[in-house]
Amino acid sequence: MAQSSKDSATGMSALVQAIEAKAVKLGKYTIESTTKAESGHPSSGLALAHLVVSLMYKQMRWDPQDPWNPNNDRLVLSEGHAVPIIYAALADMGAVAGKSKAEARKLSPADLPTLREINSILDGHPNPAEGMPFFDAATGSLGQGLSVAAGLGLAARARGIDKRIYCIIGDGESREGQIWEAADFLIDHKLTSVIPIFNCNGQGQADYVSKQQSADVLAVKLSGYGYAVEVINGNDPEAVLKALSCAAQAGSPTAIVARTEKGWGVSLLKDKGNHGKPVPADKVAAAEADLDSILVQQGIAAEPKVTLAPAKPENQAKSLPTGQIQIMPFEQGMDFVGLSSALAKGKLATRRAYGAALAALGQADERIVALDGDVSNSTFAEYFHKKFPNRFFECKIAEQNMITAATGLAAGGYIPFCSSFAKFISRGYDQVEMASISRSNIKIVGSHAGISLGADGPSQMGLVDVAFFRSMSLTDNGFGEPACVVFQPCDAVGAYYCTQLIANHEGMAYMRTFRPDTALLYKPTEKFEIGGSKVLAEGDCLTVVANGYMVHVVKKALEQVAKDGIKCTLVDAYCFPMKGEPILAAAKKTGNLILTVEDNYVGGLWSAVAEAAAEQGDTRVVGMVVRRIPKSGTPDDVMKYCGLSPEDVAAKIKDLVR
Amino acid sequence: MAQSSKDSATGMSALVQAIEAKAVKLGKYTIESTTKAESGHPSSGLALAHLVVSLMYKQMRWDPQDPWNPNNDRLVLSEGHAVPIIYAALADMGAVAGKSKAEARKLSPADLPTLREINSILDGHPNPAEGMPFFDAATGSLGQGLSVAAGLGLAARARGIDKRIYCIIGDGESREGQIWEAADFLIDHKLTSVIPIFNCNGQGQADYVSKQQSADVLAVKLSGYGYAVEVINGNDPEAVLKALSCAAQAGSPTAIVARTEKGWGVSLLKDKGNHGKPVPADKVAAAEADLDSILVQQGIAAEPKVTLAPAKPENQAKSLPTGQIQIMPFEQGMDFVGLSSALAKGKLATRRAYGAALAALGQADERIVALDGDVSNSTFAEYFHKKFPNRFFECKIAEQNMITAATGLAAGGYIPFCSSFAKFISRGYDQVEMASISRSNIKIVGSHAGISLGADGPSQMGLVDVAFFRSMSLTDNGFGEPACVVFQPCDAVGAYYCTQLIANHEGMAYMRTFRPDTALLYKPTEKFEIGGSKVLAEGDCLTVVANGYMVHVVKKALEQVAKDGIKCTLVDAYCFPMKGEPILAAAKKTGNLILTVEDNYVGGLWSAVAEAAAEQGDTRVVGMVVRRIPKSGTPDDVMKYCGLSPEDVAAKIKDLVR
Repeated sequence: MAQSSKDSATGMSALVQAIEAKAVKLGKYTIESTTKAESGHPSSGLALAHLVVSLMYKQMRWDPQDPWNPNNDRLVLSEGHAVPIIYAALADMGAVAGKSKAEARKLSPADLPTLREINSILDGHPNPAEGMPFFDAATGSLGQGLSVAAGLGLAARARGIDKRIYCIIGDGESREGQIWEAADFLIDHKLTSVIPIFNCNGQGQADYVSKQQSADVLAVKLSGYGYAVEVINGNDPEAVLKALSCAAQAGSPTAIVARTEKGWGVSLLKDKGNHGKPVPADKVAAAEADLDSILVQQGIAAEPKVTLAPAKPENQAKSLPTGQIQIMPFEQGMDFVGLSSALAKGKLATRRAYGAALAALGQADERIVALDGDVSNSTFAEYFHKKFPNRFFECKIAEQNMITAATGLAAGGYIPFCSSFAKFISRGYDQVEMASISRSNIKIVGSHAGISLGADGPSQMGLVDVAFFRSMSLTDNGFGEPACVVFQPCDAVGAYYCTQLIANHEGMAYMRTFRPDTALLYKPTEKFEIGGSKVLAEGDCLTVVANGYMVHVVKKALEQVAKDGIKCTLVDAYCFPMKGEPILAAAKKTGNLILTVEDNYVGGLWSAVAEAAAEQGDTRVVGMVVRRIPKSGTPDDVMKYCGLSPEDVAAKIKDLVR
Repeated sequence: MAQSSKDSATGMSALVQAIEAKAVKLGKYTIESTTKAESGHPSSGLALAHLVVSLMYKQMRWDPQDPWNPNNDRLVLSEGHAVPIIYAALADMGAVAGKSKAEARKLSPADLPTLREINSILDGHPNPAEGMPFFDAATGSLGQGLSVAAGLGLAARARGIDKRIYCIIGDGESREGQIWEAADFLIDHKLTSVIPIFNCNGQGQADYVSKQQSADVLAVKLSGYGYAVEVINGNDPEAVLKALSCAAQAGSPTAIVARTEKGWGVSLLKDKGNHGKPVPADKVAAAEADLDSILVQQGIAAEPKVTLAPAKPENQAKSLPTGQIQIMPFEQGMDFVGLSSALAKGKLATRRAYGAALAALGQADERIVALDGDVSNSTFAEYFHKKFPNRFFECKIAEQNMITAATGLAAGGYIPFCSSFAKFISRGYDQVEMASISRSNIKIVGSHAGISLGADGPSQMGLVDVAFFRSMSLTDNGFGEPACVVFQPCDAVGAYYCTQLIANHEGMAYMRTFRPDTALLYKPTEKFEIGGSKVLAEGDCLTVVANGYMVHVVKKALEQVAKDGIKCTLVDAYCFPMKGEPILAAAKKTGNLILTVEDNYVGGLWSAVAEAAAEQGDTRVVGMVVRRIPKSGTPDDVMKYCGLSPEDVAAKIKDLVR
């Protein structure tokens, strides 16, 4: 019997019957696994049963035995809490999973009861890093999936892969603005390979979903954004199959809005108030009987003759380079973007050097791509844009989508650099942390950091960024590497080579650049390293530790105190995690006395040095940080306003060594 | 001559002529002030000239001599960088400004050349805290203004004020998802008093604005969101006046989409690439001649006879209570929300105690309002919701809008508490920092913090929250108070009374609550204070400092080591900023040795104690923090996975005291 011809008894094709039967089977697995785990979201999973089956067993072209195949169609489960139904499908298919190809093994239904256990790869929410390569990024903090899909779409196009990326988005989470940033981004970049599927079950956690996120209103909104919209019954396999097939073939922006039933098939889960509630153990049998009765009522066999199996993808992916990237030497890099004459003046902003390094990296390796949020002429990502327009993705003023789209690009094999003002990067801190959970290889560069920005005032200054990113620097990402490496170079040479270090670091990294032009302090061949620091001056009175722009402020202060015969050691601690030993060793020669100077709120350099010093317990550390909310003024005036002018630092030094 | 009848020579009414002349005048001020400042965004201001004049001199009912009048119509300039045109209007009107009524004075055109100077109240971007009470919140990080307006609208409605809140949004910034979160929120809450005005000048910073943010597409989108949309020429005073008047009277959701010309009236600013670029000093005369010629060509007098002045508001505002809020005692508060029987078990989650305290605060003072992001049945803000449904604002899954709407509510005289999972609060960290710049009196409570959440995994855990919020705790907000106070109580009594402390703290505060039920450690009458800590046990071997959930873990560890005769001091450091002296004094009795234990990434307790200890330089501090990215598991399993189980802590203690 052909799959499409309808059975006279049921009025359904064999395919539809098979999907219905599979939905029931996976629904039962979902109930069982969440009941065993005593947590999880079975009602959300059940709503998706037909969509998941139709996608994973039929519509998607992918190889369950090779989830790492770059040609596979992908499914991004933006509403990550619904993941047990996907695990059920993977287990049912005997799909391969594991943290790496070396650890790969076939899943089976016997894995499902391990859901959410500490030794299980079936984590509470989707996460490739915990062993589920079917996924490309961790989801669970809502509203981020469509941006992941967008990044995957960009990567697929760049690698010449004709693949589709399906993204399931909950109605409740479609309230998150990031979904609409992604919706715009897909249109801007003509990413018709990405197919958003809105799952409208009408129920949130605390209450019903707003009418603003109802199927009807979502459809009108999506139409306004430029999408052709198919509104379907998401628990009707025939409608689902048709809509998926149409959307995949459309070649123009298309979205699916699927009305579904939360707790589909299980009467005791349908009522509002069952979000995130497993079926009590003593009611599992009744719940499963409910599901079985669906098949009985329709006359569908529990194990239909039609075997559901997805088509494999055709091999198409362009291979990408591998290994470490070597950029051209500093001076050549400056010349490459036309900065030689600027360099000749002896002063150059670190943000310009970043732009030059990015361009040099782009020249060296086609994996390098860049994203920016309408400020590339300030961050100087524009140097890259001009050289490699096809690898530059303008995200406009939508930083959340930028960070998460980068995560998708990284999952697609690229090394994405995101840049914006350090302040505006904070718009995507939730997304940054999700990227860290994904162990995503993304690079973030925040410009105009700290108070040296001056005139634009505090709404444009990165002041909390150091505390935020340093917080992840002592966290192991599971591969012996920091969850985030943070660089804060003080000159153009440092910024140039730290950008190379960032590119070659396997994992997330953040670099902080500054608005003003600053003197070059290092020779063009200077070497930098993760965890490194540099002794810029040696004295016997005090060790002053600074980084970034404040190195220049401290240098001025040291000139002032030198007139009084006070000689200090100056350490440029340009990286977190920071190796404490060299700094403590320097301090040993200055009476175990350290002053730290930074242009941000507490939680950065002072904390790091204090932690290292206090671990020994024999060194005194005094910290100068931004202790009042800044305002507008010239950089010098704002430094003074915040008690961080060269004179303030000099006064503190004199006070300490007296 | 009536203002509305048209002049036969110009074909314009006297009012329209006056607006055009005023637009030219303010445009010239804008050019002059930004040229003097050598920075700022004159082209953005010029685009808004007619909108600003029509609003501030005609449509808005407000008193320039009393900008603090709660009945004034308000203008939120979401695209804060365009502020010089507003300053020009205020100076031209002789409006009153100042950081407080005590410092109030009339502005004059002589103030304008001080733009962006360190001693000027004309900050680079709008900020009430720097002396510009015309504004309700700092703007400048884009896409936040409509949420401020929404909060102001809620406050006005609650206080019975029939006022309008106009919000000018740039086309480029309308890419930010938060704008659309706010657009949904306005509809959900029927806030027709808020009138969004989209300024479509078509130019961004690095490039043209995307077609997705063009006037046409914005109009269609807004229509999809449920707004009646007026698309107008924003540089045509007649069209502007008519649209504003219609929108103000509509009584149903209405938005204005205004096509404007960036750099209106000044030929050398119209070209793309002039974003944020002042007119060079030697071209100011030519630029102003351009503007003057507009009047000449139209036959309009530079100083028309019609005097533009806004109508004053009528006095309507319901007065609100003032002063400190006293909540009912702990046990009564538990009973108030039906927790007495839960309490009798001797264990209660801090998140439940927060909910109870919130309800008790609501009972004590009508200024208390609550916002939540669809998780009020997890954060237990639902206790408040059930008691005071009219003061509870459901924000759905859109945390950015929640934080900023709270800022608007605070500006309107209320004391708003925002709650969500600690992880999801990170979605609004940019907004939190903007609130700190506004010195906004908002309160934020993040539940399910740290790794004790267990099964749901890292996408739901607050791990960076302590570093982020602590970062602002040493920053003075300009009134001698911390820019943010952070609480992390370990039991229900502490959570209850810390919530009261938060309500009474004049400024921003964050509290961290935990998922599991935990033992009560304090008597119901215990007193807590900002900066405080508590000694829970005394010993002579080691001082262990913990907070929140980890106090309970450490207590178990101390029981284990006590079997080996090791007696430790245990300090509950429940607040940042943390007074270091009591902790160092405790450590003096334990050989100057401290162990800190926390369930988040670095940047919190360890850092704070190390900073205090290293300032003295004679005390050793060792820190236990989350040093690997967590995964799903039971709370106990995840603690062990992260090396923070009672056994791990006990082993570390033994290691240290050996």
